Amino acid sequence: MSKVVTMGEIMMRLAPPNNLRLGQSTSFDIVYGGDEANVAVSLSNFGIDAAYVTKLPNNPFGQEALNYIRKYGVNTQYIVRGGKRLGLSFYEIGVSMRPSRVFYDRSGSAIAEAEISDFDFDKIFKNAEWFHISGITPALSKKALALTEKALAMAKKHEVTVSIDLNYRRKLWSPERAREVMTGLMKYVDICIGNEEDAEKALGFKPANTDVYKGKLNLEGYKDIFIQMKERFGFKLVAST
Amino acid sequence: MSKVVTMGEIMMRLAPPNNLRLGQSTSFDIVYGGDEANVAVSLSNFGIDAAYVTKLPNNPFGQEALNYIRKYGVNTQYIVRGGKRLGLSFYEIGVSMRPSRVFYDRSGSAIAEAEISDFDFDKIFKNAEWFHISGITPALSKKALALTEKALAMAKKHEVTVSIDLNYRRKLWSPERAREVMTGLMKYVDICIGNEEDAEKALGFKPANTDVYKGKLNLEGYKDIFIQMKERFGFKLVAST
Amino acid sequence: MSKVVTMGEIMMRLAPPNNLRLGQSTSFDIVYGGDEANVAVSLSNFGIDAAYVTKLPNNPFGQEALNYIRKYGVNTQYIVRGGKRLGLSFYEIGVSMRPSRVFYDRSGSAIAEAEISDFDFDKIFKNAEWFHISGITPALSKKALALTEKALAMAKKHEVTVSIDLNYRRKLWSPERAREVMTGLMKYVDICIGNEEDAEKALGFKPANTDVYKGKLNLEGYKDIFIQMKERFGFKLVAST
Amino acid sequence: MSKVVTMGEIMMRLAPPNNLRLGQSTSFDIVYGGDEANVAVSLSNFGIDAAYVTKLPNNPFGQEALNYIRKYGVNTQYIVRGGKRLGLSFYEIGVSMRPSRVFYDRSGSAIAEAEISDFDFDKIFKNAEWFHISGITPALSKKALALTEKALAMAKKHEVTVSIDLNYRRKLWSPERAREVMTGLMKYVDICIGNEEDAEKALGFKPANTDVYKGKLNLEGYKDIFIQMKERFGFKLVAST
Amino acid sequence: MSKVVTMGEIMMRLAPPNNLRLGQSTSFDIVYGGDEANVAVSLSNFGIDAAYVTKLPNNPFGQEALNYIRKYGVNTQYIVRGGKRLGLSFYEIGVSMRPSRVFYDRSGSAIAEAEISDFDFDKIFKNAEWFHISGITPALSKKALALTEKALAMAKKHEVTVSIDLNYRRKLWSPERAREVMTGLMKYVDICIGNEEDAEKALGFKPANTDVYKGKLNLEGYKDIFIQMKERFGFKLVAST
Amino acid sequence: MSKVVTMGEIMMRLAPPNNLRLGQSTSFDIVYGGDEANVAVSLSNFGIDAAYVTKLPNNPFGQEALNYIRKYGVNTQYIVRGGKRLGLSFYEIGVSMRPSRVFYDRSGSAIAEAEISDFDFDKIFKNAEWFHISGITPALSKKALALTEKALAMAKKHEVTVSIDLNYRRKLWSPERAREVMTGLMKYVDICIGNEEDAEKALGFKPANTDVYKGKLNLEGYKDIFIQMKERFGFKLVAST
Repeated sequence: MSKVVTMGEIMMRLAPPNNLRLGQSTSFDIVYGGDEANVAVSLSNFGIDAAYVTKLPNNPFGQEALNYIRKYGVNTQYIVRGGKRLGLSFYEIGVSMRPSRVFYDRSGSAIAEAEISDFDFDKIFKNAEWFHISGITPALSKKALALTEKALAMAKKHEVTVSIDLNYRRKLWSPERAREVMTGLMKYVDICIGNEEDAEKALGFKPANTDVYKGKLNLEGYKDIFIQMKERFGFKLVAST
Repeated sequence: MSKVVTMGEIMMRLAPPNNLRLGQSTSFDIVYGGDEANVAVSLSNFGIDAAYVTKLPNNPFGQEALNYIRKYGVNTQYIVRGGKRLGLSFYEIGVSMRPSRVFYDRSGSAIAEAEISDFDFDKIFKNAEWFHISGITPALSKKALALTEKALAMAKKHEVTVSIDLNYRRKLWSPERAREVMTGLMKYVDICIGNEEDAEKALGFKPANTDVYKGKLNLEGYKDIFIQMKERFGFKLVAST
Repeated sequence: MSKVVTMGEIMMRLAPPNNLRLGQSTSFDIVYGGDEANVAVSLSNFGIDAAYVTKLPNNPFGQEALNYIRKYGVNTQYIVRGGKRLGLSFYEIGVSMRPSRVFYDRSGSAIAEAEISDFDFDKIFKNAEWFHISGITPALSKKALALTEKALAMAKKHEVTVSIDLNYRRKLWSPERAREVMTGLMKYVDICIGNEEDAEKALGFKPANTDVYKGKLNLEGYKDIFIQMKERFGFKLVAST
Repeated sequence: MSKVVTMGEIMMRLAPPNNLRLGQSTSFDIVYGGDEANVAVSLSNFGIDAAYVTKLPNNPFGQEALNYIRKYGVNTQYIVRGGKRLGLSFYEIGVSMRPSRVFYDRSGSAIAEAEISDFDFDKIFKNAEWFHISGITPALSKKALALTEKALAMAKKHEVTVSIDLNYRRKLWSPERAREVMTGLMKYVDICIGNEEDAEKALGFKPANTDVYKGKLNLEGYKDIFIQMKERFGFKLVAST
Repeated sequence: MSKVVTMGEIMMRLAPPNNLRLGQSTSFDIVYGGDEANVAVSLSNFGIDAAYVTKLPNNPFGQEALNYIRKYGVNTQYIVRGGKRLGLSFYEIGVSMRPSRVFYDRSGSAIAEAEISDFDFDKIFKNAEWFHISGITPALSKKALALTEKALAMAKKHEVTVSIDLNYRRKLWSPERAREVMTGLMKYVDICIGNEEDAEKALGFKPANTDVYKGKLNLEGYKDIFIQMKERFGFKLVAST
Repeated sequence: MSKVVTMGEIMMRLAPPNNLRLGQSTSFDIVYGGDEANVAVSLSNFGIDAAYVTKLPNNPFGQEALNYIRKYGVNTQYIVRGGKRLGLSFYEIGVSMRPSRVFYDRSGSAIAEAEISDFDFDKIFKNAEWFHISGITPALSKKALALTEKALAMAKKHEVTVSIDLNYRRKLWSPERAREVMTGLMKYVDICIGNEEDAEKALGFKPANTDVYKGKLNLEGYKDIFIQMKERFGFKLVAST
């Protein structure tokens, strides 16, 4: 019965220490995290009662992921245990000219393979005021898309305000598939968060007259996009990151 | 409204890595812990709803101590924030012939200086079934003794079962002072935990005929002590560690 | 054109440093290895020309696995690059009473999904004298079993001596499935390596009169098994580990 | 019988490695240091015979503090052993926008509780040429102020040149209290070191016409301060840091 | 029978971790490397068949140096084992204003004391197309100079293209000695690599009119140097670094 | 003017952390030490005024070696600076069945190449009561032998009690050469320390009747050796280690 509910995937992120490259290092530092989990942690640190919903495997890594969010006071009572594995990411921190790199090894993760019946959304959204997701979860798998859609529908049923961070990830799906899926979900969304790339890749909006303003930041064009998005999907608010 | 409540001091324990000696090491590993906090963590790991009561300073070390117990699912809602410092201990791990050593730097800690009015024991013990403390807290300071006694009295008022781990610490007080204080607290106690040294130092019980059985483990004598303790203080149970 | 050829899976093994438990550690030490790769490394360290055959993904972890065996002078020219991922294992080192634990996260690895057409066995076994595999690879997947059988058949065609380490792994398959698969492969095998558990689980041999000798090491019974195995499958040699 | 004598508090400074935040790190790097001790170390590194005076507890941390300064060739024969604890500081290194933070845990330290009778200043200043202290020591406690004043008086008696680094620390005392104490000590001082903030907070000097030159560096105004300070207290030299 | 052959010294480089200074650190990170070895490693990483020629001691450090280059797929079959020691360098990484420092401890190393008869250059250069050395090896010792000259002569005999990186190192020899030695080697060289300092210190070329263009980058003058070098020594190519 | 004087070589010892093997580790832990330096450190820790005599190079490693002994309060005023390098040793800690291994890289060290004229023994031994050396220093080089003999002669001239720890090291010299040198030095020695191996290898004493008592500890025979040694060289005391 938390005020804010977020749902998504939490992964074990492995990164070489001291800015070393993958392949140079003989050890990895371990960090647990995920976009929606981090939102819940931040809210909890600010004193807001936040719950995080996910599915975590019954192994030491699933337990550590749970402990990580519990440590910051996030309500973890709706987290379901089971499934085969925790998603992994390998992260190489960029240094000066060298860009950062990430390698995902997340297919078949517990949340990607979770069933709708794993979760009791009536209980989860009872007395909740806000539900936050990202565009990452529906990109994980067909099951994760179905779960996302069910969660959104149930949030609406309980008159919970819904926000989504579009967060287009090219390693997970093509712009075409993203657009197909994401436009279908927008009817549940009250507040849409994203940058211009997200707006284009995940929802198909392009600023007008981009050829004319080439090379300059086309602020008017972006404003135009956000107005279009608001009109098209009936968002209460569009926030650019 | 947890089923089990424990109360005590949680400290930051600093120990050299790799079994190095204090004075040889250029770094310390940081661990948070305390006897009663560890009991709450263990119960929570077994799935029992446990709350931990203490006072922690408003600094990064107090926050980390709080996060540590929260990480394991312990109910931390009764923890009070404030006071001057978190108690410290420096721990040198023994290796083969070299015994372990501990140096406490805990005087003036938040819980040692806490006021009775910092805590709402009616709320804490409402619906609680069990209250657990140790003989360490009353040894910390006069205020900590007063706080302990108040907590015990309030637990009794709410008909909560009370257990105490005698845990005599010679670095904190003399056997004489321990006996004076501890015997006064036993009227609130249902279950008394301790070994023979604790029974002697903290409560003044000695096995009969120790001269006769010198050099042998006097099991009968110990049994006799525990029977005496049960009779004298009306314990429901005496458990030897 | 190496004298000895081994084939199998090489994994990235992640283990907490300093004998910490999985879940206690904030870092992992990285080690690459696999039973058949380790055999190739040992032979190379003894100055024997050994080649290792596997499939490794085109990512930094596949490259590191390749570099690891190349470092010890193993011939890596037959290693194929491609596939989705490198298999992982998480290893917790046991300490005194606490046993070691391993968690595999290896499904979908490059070698488990490799095609027979990925490898040119005529080239690999030309002038080779010895081929060594283990019972782990055929347990990985149907494709890995087909690949193992093809490799064994090609080795026989080139009149290469074949050794197998039975190495039954209960986390990979049931004794029933192991027996079904492994007995089918024995016709290619000249030298069979394994202990009594492997003989029973992977090939279905039990020592006679085990009831009678209960509690004692039934050396005669084991000798009997090995003689039966030799007769049944025509092994030149049976080695117990 | 060293040429230069410095006196003050040496603390154990604990800081997370790799620029981590307090609360993120599971270990601390240990460094010993203190303003006046560092001056003695620097002088010794330049080949000047320097002694450091302080009181250190009879525990491994006091011993390590002693060893630290002895390592650099500083004369440690006047250091007194005893007292309850070594002062601690916890240091978080700032990174880009994030400022550095320090948390002191130094009350009740050996030098803060030292007695005048602990030290034989006639022996310490015999043949000495220079005595250096800072404005930190008199801020520690009443006893530390009395000790500082005694040391200054004894230095003067032995015709030793006295320098002081004002070093105003707002976590130790208010400007009002600092001014009251520090102006009383200036009669013993030959050379006064400090910046404008120190001059204002510790001695009460403000540059003239600060309103007029607001926002600009008022070099004339500062020069004016230093001339005033020199006149008021009879300093031979004022050095700005 | 590799396409490219490089020859030189590989050292164990010891450097304090975390940008610490030599003298501050209680540990060293170990890296193996050398200019010509690094060229072979880079070529091998680009898929070019490269061999590295050197002499390495029969101890764990010589073995590790060998393993290091073997790891990257460099052909190590011409490396000779023997001699007394592996050269060492101690490296302090510069930070902002503090320049980097290196301390060599390489005299008496296996390659510096190697005999010409240790190597079979007819075999090494058979079918090779390119031979690369640097100006470091001839500076190591008289034996290393003789070895370098023999290798160059044998490369020419086998009609192998020869490149040299002048790489003048003032800690190894004076400009006078460098010039005397290096000008004598240039007759074997087809491609000469170096910057202006190398051209001056190792070969004695100075840009014309340096007085006139003082303080400006005299590009014309440098171009002039390189043309002179080409004419004087008959280089096919001069590359500035 | 210290009471006890010791003289010898102090080396930088590099050892892999966590009991890793040389060749497995990517870092070394740094420790400074030497037999005679360790004696001086121990004496100083017990409060005895001890000086250590050696020659150390003018580089960061020589400085660190100096700081190491100074840290423990040893008198370092007679240490001479100069020479080419600090001796190194690489140490692999044995684990269970695997014995420890040490690789020396100490030839050409500052003390091995030191001149007699580097030291002012009249000043060093003035008021000294005890001089301690080991059998390692005379084994380092001809110059180090000459230095040792001079030091012993000067100690005798100043009527200083002389002790020697025979400490035969087979990696430094043969038993024949050791005997030749060491028997020549015994005339200066008052107290001789060593075990049976040292007595045999460095001085040529064998227990009588070793054939008869083969396999048993021949205590009588050893006692006999020590009596012979005492008689032959006029030792005041022979101590077995």
